[in-house]
Amino acid sequence: MHIGIIGLGRMGANMRSRLRQHDIDVTGYDTNPAVSDVGSLAELVEVLPAPRVVWVMVPSGPVTDGVVADLADLLDAGDLVINGGNSRYTDDLAYGETLGAGGVRFVDAGVSGGVWGDRYGYGLMVGGADEDVERAMPVFDALRPEGPREEGFSHVGPVAAGHYAKMVHNGVEYALMQAYAEGYELLAKRTDLVTDVEATFAGWQRGTVVRSWLLELLVRALQQDPELDEIKGYVEDSGEGRWTVDEAIDQAVPVPTIAAAIFARFVSRQDDSPAMRAVASLRNQFGGHAVKPAEE
Amino acid sequence: MHIGIIGLGRMGANMRSRLRQHDIDVTGYDTNPAVSDVGSLAELVEVLPAPRVVWVMVPSGPVTDGVVADLADLLDAGDLVINGGNSRYTDDLAYGETLGAGGVRFVDAGVSGGVWGDRYGYGLMVGGADEDVERAMPVFDALRPEGPREEGFSHVGPVAAGHYAKMVHNGVEYALMQAYAEGYELLAKRTDLVTDVEATFAGWQRGTVVRSWLLELLVRALQQDPELDEIKGYVEDSGEGRWTVDEAIDQAVPVPTIAAAIFARFVSRQDDSPAMRAVASLRNQFGGHAVKPAEE
Amino acid sequence: MHIGIIGLGRMGANMRSRLRQHDIDVTGYDTNPAVSDVGSLAELVEVLPAPRVVWVMVPSGPVTDGVVADLADLLDAGDLVINGGNSRYTDDLAYGETLGAGGVRFVDAGVSGGVWGDRYGYGLMVGGADEDVERAMPVFDALRPEGPREEGFSHVGPVAAGHYAKMVHNGVEYALMQAYAEGYELLAKRTDLVTDVEATFAGWQRGTVVRSWLLELLVRALQQDPELDEIKGYVEDSGEGRWTVDEAIDQAVPVPTIAAAIFARFVSRQDDSPAMRAVASLRNQFGGHAVKPAEE
Amino acid sequence: MHIGIIGLGRMGANMRSRLRQHDIDVTGYDTNPAVSDVGSLAELVEVLPAPRVVWVMVPSGPVTDGVVADLADLLDAGDLVINGGNSRYTDDLAYGETLGAGGVRFVDAGVSGGVWGDRYGYGLMVGGADEDVERAMPVFDALRPEGPREEGFSHVGPVAAGHYAKMVHNGVEYALMQAYAEGYELLAKRTDLVTDVEATFAGWQRGTVVRSWLLELLVRALQQDPELDEIKGYVEDSGEGRWTVDEAIDQAVPVPTIAAAIFARFVSRQDDSPAMRAVASLRNQFGGHAVKPAEE
Repeated sequence: MHIGIIGLGRMGANMRSRLRQHDIDVTGYDTNPAVSDVGSLAELVEVLPAPRVVWVMVPSGPVTDGVVADLADLLDAGDLVINGGNSRYTDDLAYGETLGAGGVRFVDAGVSGGVWGDRYGYGLMVGGADEDVERAMPVFDALRPEGPREEGFSHVGPVAAGHYAKMVHNGVEYALMQAYAEGYELLAKRTDLVTDVEATFAGWQRGTVVRSWLLELLVRALQQDPELDEIKGYVEDSGEGRWTVDEAIDQAVPVPTIAAAIFARFVSRQDDSPAMRAVASLRNQFGGHAVKPAEE
Repeated sequence: MHIGIIGLGRMGANMRSRLRQHDIDVTGYDTNPAVSDVGSLAELVEVLPAPRVVWVMVPSGPVTDGVVADLADLLDAGDLVINGGNSRYTDDLAYGETLGAGGVRFVDAGVSGGVWGDRYGYGLMVGGADEDVERAMPVFDALRPEGPREEGFSHVGPVAAGHYAKMVHNGVEYALMQAYAEGYELLAKRTDLVTDVEATFAGWQRGTVVRSWLLELLVRALQQDPELDEIKGYVEDSGEGRWTVDEAIDQAVPVPTIAAAIFARFVSRQDDSPAMRAVASLRNQFGGHAVKPAEE
Repeated sequence: MHIGIIGLGRMGANMRSRLRQHDIDVTGYDTNPAVSDVGSLAELVEVLPAPRVVWVMVPSGPVTDGVVADLADLLDAGDLVINGGNSRYTDDLAYGETLGAGGVRFVDAGVSGGVWGDRYGYGLMVGGADEDVERAMPVFDALRPEGPREEGFSHVGPVAAGHYAKMVHNGVEYALMQAYAEGYELLAKRTDLVTDVEATFAGWQRGTVVRSWLLELLVRALQQDPELDEIKGYVEDSGEGRWTVDEAIDQAVPVPTIAAAIFARFVSRQDDSPAMRAVASLRNQFGGHAVKPAEE
Repeated sequence: MHIGIIGLGRMGANMRSRLRQHDIDVTGYDTNPAVSDVGSLAELVEVLPAPRVVWVMVPSGPVTDGVVADLADLLDAGDLVINGGNSRYTDDLAYGETLGAGGVRFVDAGVSGGVWGDRYGYGLMVGGADEDVERAMPVFDALRPEGPREEGFSHVGPVAAGHYAKMVHNGVEYALMQAYAEGYELLAKRTDLVTDVEATFAGWQRGTVVRSWLLELLVRALQQDPELDEIKGYVEDSGEGRWTVDEAIDQAVPVPTIAAAIFARFVSRQDDSPAMRAVASLRNQFGGHAVKPAEE
């Protein structure tokens, strides 16, 4: 099999290498000529055998929009585009239509695993028609982890379903991380009782109900920085957690832990909370409670 | 009527003055001789006409414990102690027993209104036997706001019920303050739309569903400090909110907004959140996401 | 002054009557001829003196979209449209553009007060240009409550600002209601301590920190139904709370109490929670905990 | 090594059998003669070689209190008691003192793993003095899972630290379960996109960031009951989650996801929420919103 990959950032480049190790021919295209195998998108399309399979791995939003628009022009009916980036699932519906107008097939693939995927394989959640997913299966089999296919890959449903599942996956991930983090703070607070926080988390890795990969990563982080004092409690978010809450609100699904995890990140990025200034002002008004003046 | 007040801090002193304005004779005792009317607790007990009525207005916990123990020694059967401090309702159960062993009667009174109570009267929530509450009614009528008694006073139930209601009152208060504060942040964030946050809140004082005394205080705070930039978003808590959550947990009552309000205060007091350092570390581990190093 | 009102449902009809009591001439149009003063929108436009002022009071979304489109056709440059319905603020931006293309001016007005507004006046939050807001001031003065204008009316900012403020108002309102409701459940749970829940809430109406109009409504509800057992704990939401959370997510503003209030409503409408079935299943899997079989 | 086990319920009996498979001699005592190896606690103490090691595995609270009191009478200085039940960590402090008065040593052991521990070993978190933990190490090594000791066992700190860590473990566990459950509801809601929820979760087991043992259990549950419709969304809690929130409140540690998980369980057990009846009543009062009458 011979496929194209568009976008050779860290993820795309890792995937190219993993696919090649699994005997898939890959031609990569990137706007950065230093990493690109070809000089242009048109050239990429030219070198691929028809019907073509193209994996898109570029930033979600406008960049993906542009690549899909270009591919709609360049590809032929029967070619297949797989969107492996972190697109919002509603965007995939539009991509499917844009490409489908010219008979180009479309599959969306949510990809999990981060920088570890190169070593262990990527968890894949895929949306699209049966025959399109089937056609791309050698690619999915090369990218997914070792072991039974159904434990690291799922064909979730029609186009957009893959990124829908990935969005939910990430919302859950936010809440899982926050849960361990709350446990960390509770353990770290009682230095009179918990003499070694890292050892305590390490001991949770086998036999307990809370064992998980995230736990193993937390142990690894604590081994490198036992007090976590080389890092600031400032946490970005990449959008998918927000989309999950938006979707939950639309669907009237209560998601208190996912929302709490997002809000905790928002707060972590504030130097001083406007809301808490309002609460402090109120306390001051009704109770004459002492307040902390803002620093000069 | 002639009563004793023990504890002449800001609240106790204000109450003494309000009671005297309402033609109640008051003898006050405080460990600070500069404000005390008598030299000792024993002297206070001596000057009060039997059966005595004594209002205790000292810090909750050990100080109140000590005063109640002393009163149990000094008072006679048929005397009445009213605990107006912010005690945990479970403490009142113990006080009732300690005093009751010698036939001394006991009533607990939750008091709301803060520093404004001196001017407008105090909202009162009272627990105790009917005859004891009835005996103290002239005191309650003097302390409570103008208007119908039942709108600023309630006899909630037996001993401890007054402070139980006050605890719930304060838990609700925390959540109300947090609600307005979230609204404040949302309004203040969109400077492109909301050109005058203070005027917006001011306009909510009549006719809207959210009009309240807390809203009026927020308007007052904004009039004094329109950007709330003379204050830090650092908020203490006085214990009653915590008790409310503890009680809710014991009673299996879901209190998501009250708990959220308490947690927001906890976070506001942290320079850097240990939990969020854990989340940042986790992101770093799985995604190679850039992190902010802790500052030197 | 002579204005038109489009939409004579409960709110629109009440407003027509309140405006007339304040010596504003009003011609109302509704698709229901039984309540309409004129036979068509065109006729309404015809009878109004130029430059015209038209208050739109129809359901938000497609219905308002349609009315605005019709008015863009019928009105002349210099006429003024005020959107008093519960539109999402982003819709107002579009309305302003649609109407502005033909020189028609536009103001959005968030209206609070519910069914009580007819008696007490409506809290108003308005967005638009200074001269447009000024032109409509007699209408706002007639609709708003007695008392100082700035306590029941605010000119929040440019077009869309009025409904932005109204959206935030409603988000806050959701959280306030939830806060009192949690307090209600805590008080009602301890029948051993709180012998009269209604009297306890009634006693909070004067002097306490939590006094508010919502509290007065809760007292009123408890007077009519002391155990609240004539009503089901099933709560709809009208959209504005959802928009508030969506906006907060977009703006990275933490809104834990507003979100908790929305989620509590979502849960209240579920016969059986899918999420909690998942938790019950998990407990069953790892602990062999007894579970409740679904009922036949 | 020869130890005694007190309490041969499911967990105690499983442990006895696992220890015997690992060549530890075990004499078990239970009040149920059908499962007990000896007729009385005194007899158990008699048959054990001095210095004795006794593992207590009975319900936390009064039952453990009673067993510890009995052991304080029966054991000799230098004997060692290990409390493997789910005690609140503050109880362990008292047990350590009670036993220590007579020179009896004490270790507390938090045990995780549920019914699967018999097969895979138990995750262990232990509190106590170094020499006492060392003495009991053959027991811990037999009970813990295969693999490196430090991945399934930790010596957390002094007496009470083991159960403190176990309490936090369970608090985290509650939040993790709730996180997956929210994801489940989001996936199950969109039947238009997610055609096979079980396959989607199954595909998360390898390569994804959210892979964990709980996830595997959820997949197992879905394999047995794909729609989770044989179970009711009614979830008990065993106390440790509540203790975690209480502790967090005491320590001023924000735990929004753990608290949300507990509250969700509380709600799941309510037929009709008093709080939401209050919210529905309020909506009815101010808006004339339609309400659902309580069913007959």
